[in-house]
Amino acid sequence: MSRISTAILQTPVSASKQENLDRVAELLSRNFFQDVDLVTLPEMFTCPYETTEFPKYAEPAGGPTWKFLSDLAAEHKVYLQAGSFPEIDDAGHIYNTAYVFDRDGKQIARHRKVHLFDIDITGEQTFRESDTLTAGDDVTVFDTEFGKMGLCICFDIRFQRLFEDMTDAGAKVVLVPASFNMTTGPAHWQLLFRSRALDNQIYVVGTSAARNLDASYVSYGHSLAVDPWGIVLSEMHGKAEGRVVDLDLDRVEEVRKQIPLGK
Amino acid sequence: MSRISTAILQTPVSASKQENLDRVAELLSRNFFQDVDLVTLPEMFTCPYETTEFPKYAEPAGGPTWKFLSDLAAEHKVYLQAGSFPEIDDAGHIYNTAYVFDRDGKQIARHRKVHLFDIDITGEQTFRESDTLTAGDDVTVFDTEFGKMGLCICFDIRFQRLFEDMTDAGAKVVLVPASFNMTTGPAHWQLLFRSRALDNQIYVVGTSAARNLDASYVSYGHSLAVDPWGIVLSEMHGKAEGRVVDLDLDRVEEVRKQIPLGK
Repeated sequence: MSRISTAILQTPVSASKQENLDRVAELLSRNFFQDVDLVTLPEMFTCPYETTEFPKYAEPAGGPTWKFLSDLAAEHKVYLQAGSFPEIDDAGHIYNTAYVFDRDGKQIARHRKVHLFDIDITGEQTFRESDTLTAGDDVTVFDTEFGKMGLCICFDIRFQRLFEDMTDAGAKVVLVPASFNMTTGPAHWQLLFRSRALDNQIYVVGTSAARNLDASYVSYGHSLAVDPWGIVLSEMHGKAEGRVVDLDLDRVEEVRKQIPLGK
Repeated sequence: MSRISTAILQTPVSASKQENLDRVAELLSRNFFQDVDLVTLPEMFTCPYETTEFPKYAEPAGGPTWKFLSDLAAEHKVYLQAGSFPEIDDAGHIYNTAYVFDRDGKQIARHRKVHLFDIDITGEQTFRESDTLTAGDDVTVFDTEFGKMGLCICFDIRFQRLFEDMTDAGAKVVLVPASFNMTTGPAHWQLLFRSRALDNQIYVVGTSAARNLDASYVSYGHSLAVDPWGIVLSEMHGKAEGRVVDLDLDRVEEVRKQIPLGK
C-alpha cells in the first residue's frame, strides 16, 4: 500500500465539452491504464482556456460533467482527480473547481482555485481570471487508502503557505491540475513543482492540457511528477500523452529522516 | 541608486584564522573590486567547518575578527556582509553568526543562524551543528542606502516562512552566507536559491567557501546570485573565485507588477 500507480493524462482540449469527456473515457478503457490506482486530468480540460468561455461551460455542483466523471471513476475503480472545470453556484458565481472521486465514484474532495491567475507580462502574456471567476478559500486535503493527499490548482502552486497547510494536515502527495503558458512555463513550471516538493518533502504531481498552438492561450504542457527530494520522476513535452508513474510513499519518511526540517 | 554592484568572494578556508582574514583584505585591495558597493563572504570562513572546531575559533561580540572586518568595510567604504564565524556569548553559548557593516564600518545587522544544520544522509553526509551550536531566533532585516535587505545563513534557506517574513519587512535583497556539501549541493543548492527568489520576487545572493577536497566537510561552492524572476545571474564552479554582479532593484517592482502575488 505504499506505492501509488498514477496515470497522468495530458489531454488535448477542444471546444466540444463532450469530445473532451469522451477522450478521457476512451483513454481509460485502454489496457495500458487498467491497473492504475489514481488518474489525474488537466486544469479546465472541458473548455477553451478563455475567461469569456468559462461562464458558457459552467455547470452547477453535481451536473452532467460531474456525473460523467464520477461514473468513470466507479467504472474503472480508480481514484480520479478529475482535473478542473467551471462551476457555477446558486448565486451565479463561477469557480475554477477540481474534484476527486474515489473507486466507488464518490466525491471525496472539491477545491475551488484560491489564487486566481492574473498576470500582465507586457508583450508576452496577459490573463485575468478574476474577470469572470470567483476565488475559493479552502485548504483541501482528503483521505485515501494510501493516506492523505492535497489538491490545489495551477497558480496556487506559487504559494508555499498553502502547501505548508496541506502538509501540516498530513498530505504526502499534492495533485495540481494546471496550465502554464509559453512564457511562465519555461521560466517557472518545473522550478515551482520542484520547490513545493522539496520545501514540504512530499510528492507533487502537475497535470496540464497538451499544447495547442492554435488556441488563444497556449498551454506549456510538461505534466510532471516530482519526488520529496525534488527529483523529477517524469516530465512530458508539450504534446498529448498519457504516462504512468509510481509514487513510493516510503520515500517521504526516508527524506524527512535524512533532512529533518521539523516544524 | 537602483543598481548594487556586488562582489561575491568565494574564498578558500584554511585552519589559520589570520590567513583567512588576510586573504579577504588582499582581495579587497585589488583594482577589480575598487568600485563595488557591497561585498559578501562565505559561511564560517575563518575556520574549518567542523562542529569540534567552532568552540576553538569562537570570539565574543566585538572581538578581534569583528574589529578586523569592521575596519575593512570602513577602509574600502563598502557594505560588507562579513560571512559568518563562531560567536560565543557571556553564557558560553556558541552561535553561527553573520554581520553586516556599513561604509563607515558600523555594524548594521547581526544574524545568528536560526535553523541549525542537522542532517543524516546515511553513507553520504551527516552533520550535527546542534552538537556545539545554539540557534538564534531573529528575522534579520537592515537598512542601506539602497533600501532594505535581509540576512540569513545556509540551512535557513530551506524555510520559506523566514524569507516571507524578511520580504514582508521590506527586504528586496537577501544575503545568504552558506556552505552546502557534495550531496545536497548538486541536488538542492540552485533549486533552493531560485525558489526563494521566485517565491518572494527578490534577489537572493549565496556565498560559499571554495571547495577543498581535503577538508572533512567538502563545500559545494557554486556561489550565485538569482534575480526576482528566478533567473541565475551568476553561478561559480567549486574553485576559489571573486565575481562582481549588478543587482538592479527596478527589476523587483517590474516582476511584482507582471505577476502580482500580493499578500
